[in-house]
Amino acid sequence: MKVVVTGGAGFIGSNLVDRLLEDGHQVVALDNLSTGHPQFLQDALRQRGFSLVEGDLLDESIVESTLAGADAVVHLAANADVRFGWDHPRRDLEQNAMATQNVLEAMRRNGVRRILFASTGSVYGETDVIPTPEDAPFPLQTSLYGASKLAAEGLIQAYSEAGEVDATVFRFVSILGPRYTHGHVIDFVRQLREDPGHLKILGDGTQRKSYLYVDDCVAAICARLSVQVPMEVMNLGLDAFVTVKDSADRICARLNVCPEFEFSGGDRGWIGDNPFILLDVSRIESVGWIARTPLLEAVDATVDWLMANEWVFDQVS
Amino acid sequence: MKVVVTGGAGFIGSNLVDRLLEDGHQVVALDNLSTGHPQFLQDALRQRGFSLVEGDLLDESIVESTLAGADAVVHLAANADVRFGWDHPRRDLEQNAMATQNVLEAMRRNGVRRILFASTGSVYGETDVIPTPEDAPFPLQTSLYGASKLAAEGLIQAYSEAGEVDATVFRFVSILGPRYTHGHVIDFVRQLREDPGHLKILGDGTQRKSYLYVDDCVAAICARLSVQVPMEVMNLGLDAFVTVKDSADRICARLNVCPEFEFSGGDRGWIGDNPFILLDVSRIESVGWIARTPLLEAVDATVDWLMANEWVFDQVS
Repeated sequence: MKVVVTGGAGFIGSNLVDRLLEDGHQVVALDNLSTGHPQFLQDALRQRGFSLVEGDLLDESIVESTLAGADAVVHLAANADVRFGWDHPRRDLEQNAMATQNVLEAMRRNGVRRILFASTGSVYGETDVIPTPEDAPFPLQTSLYGASKLAAEGLIQAYSEAGEVDATVFRFVSILGPRYTHGHVIDFVRQLREDPGHLKILGDGTQRKSYLYVDDCVAAICARLSVQVPMEVMNLGLDAFVTVKDSADRICARLNVCPEFEFSGGDRGWIGDNPFILLDVSRIESVGWIARTPLLEAVDATVDWLMANEWVFDQVS
Repeated sequence: MKVVVTGGAGFIGSNLVDRLLEDGHQVVALDNLSTGHPQFLQDALRQRGFSLVEGDLLDESIVESTLAGADAVVHLAANADVRFGWDHPRRDLEQNAMATQNVLEAMRRNGVRRILFASTGSVYGETDVIPTPEDAPFPLQTSLYGASKLAAEGLIQAYSEAGEVDATVFRFVSILGPRYTHGHVIDFVRQLREDPGHLKILGDGTQRKSYLYVDDCVAAICARLSVQVPMEVMNLGLDAFVTVKDSADRICARLNVCPEFEFSGGDRGWIGDNPFILLDVSRIESVGWIARTPLLEAVDATVDWLMANEWVFDQVS
């Protein structure tokens, strides 16, 4: 298959690119390199069957030309920062919803039918139903990020209803692993490299979060790549969680440091932070996928990768 | 209060403007007159305390200047055409979601806290739960219109969560009454004026729809205008429905014609048409609102208004 991966130079995207190439697919990564890193594609760029197109999804013409002849699009490109949405309130709608419509229109014009989309568990807002299934009660949005991802989901669903595309919408928890470049693990490791005696933690540390290892995430995408279904929504996560403090303890142990913790306080780290995220993943498990990496091992692997790739601390702000 | 009504020259907007002026409020209608009609504001324009600003919600500066000093915004302006979304696939996201973000940003910059928003029962897609409550299972979108209204809802909810606005989101069924300018009643009346012997009906006529009379809709908006609540979602409809064929029969009786019906066939009229819409309105009834106009009387009043205002058939395509 010829697979276009938007955001292919990013954390999840570049891991997916490597796996798709291993599986023998022809792969095009489309990335504006705003948060992606060409370094992540070093191996891929040495392989026949891979190309990188540097372009922005808001540029309709480059999206249309890149998708020509594709069999499937894995649409991962996004403004993925839940926490700083309020610094740039229009960015989420543009980069998540409008960009998704550009992908869908380019698919229509090129006759590409298959799309797999990375949505987020954030679309459940602060649901009372935990673990949260895909058909949880209609939620209220709590972040611009979640709202814009829900907008993108809705567009994809409408295009599917109209018979234009066949879609798998994944709702991801946060992903950990090699090439991870934003979130609490990198924040903590960065702080501890600078001052091993002190760690600032947003919130009171009791927030409970579920994380998934990137290889498990990529395996799920590959497992659904060729499925023929007009529309399916699949939670993608682990049936386990840690508190932010548990995760901080694990990171400190891995780094062999013993800092004093300074909590900013409150039961959430920022506006729209969700104090408890745990997705019901029985739907995707029922079609044969299972997560293989325990949560704290995913934390360890992320710390190890960051310490072996310290250049990311200079490249990522 | 000083109330800005976006889409104030439209069907529901102009009815609301009249009612707000009657109640003694200062009212500004903001409308790009793309589907609104200045004629609908003839009475309002003669009153002190009313002004019409002709401007588009995609023009950030005009939205910001119009909202200066407002106490509340009733945001009704929208691309309201569910049926023809696929002729202009980008229009819904622009005019419904981006326009809503412009309203929210203008509110932030002007310190306006209160927004009431016209969303739609279409956000429930084809739910299995009928009558449909506000916390129905997380639906799949079936139209660009519904997807874009859901995007707007999500943005409003995120702004509310961030403490920027206090919001009431109404999910409307279709509204009938004076100044109604699009939907099946005007389609049928237009056809029957041209040829009283023949009526084309989209679908097989069995689609079941709920409609609400515009005075009841306006009364609900006015009842929630000054409520102090960070976020509430309220279905707004009638606890009754008719089939499209029932409605056609009633319209024919009112016009005293007896045409041959020609059904296009299928259980829905167009892509994304929902064969059965009936909202659970117990939440808004629990705060004291009740619909006063029976459904078929709303149909009659709409037919009567159209026949007394035949200019609309030339103005509306």
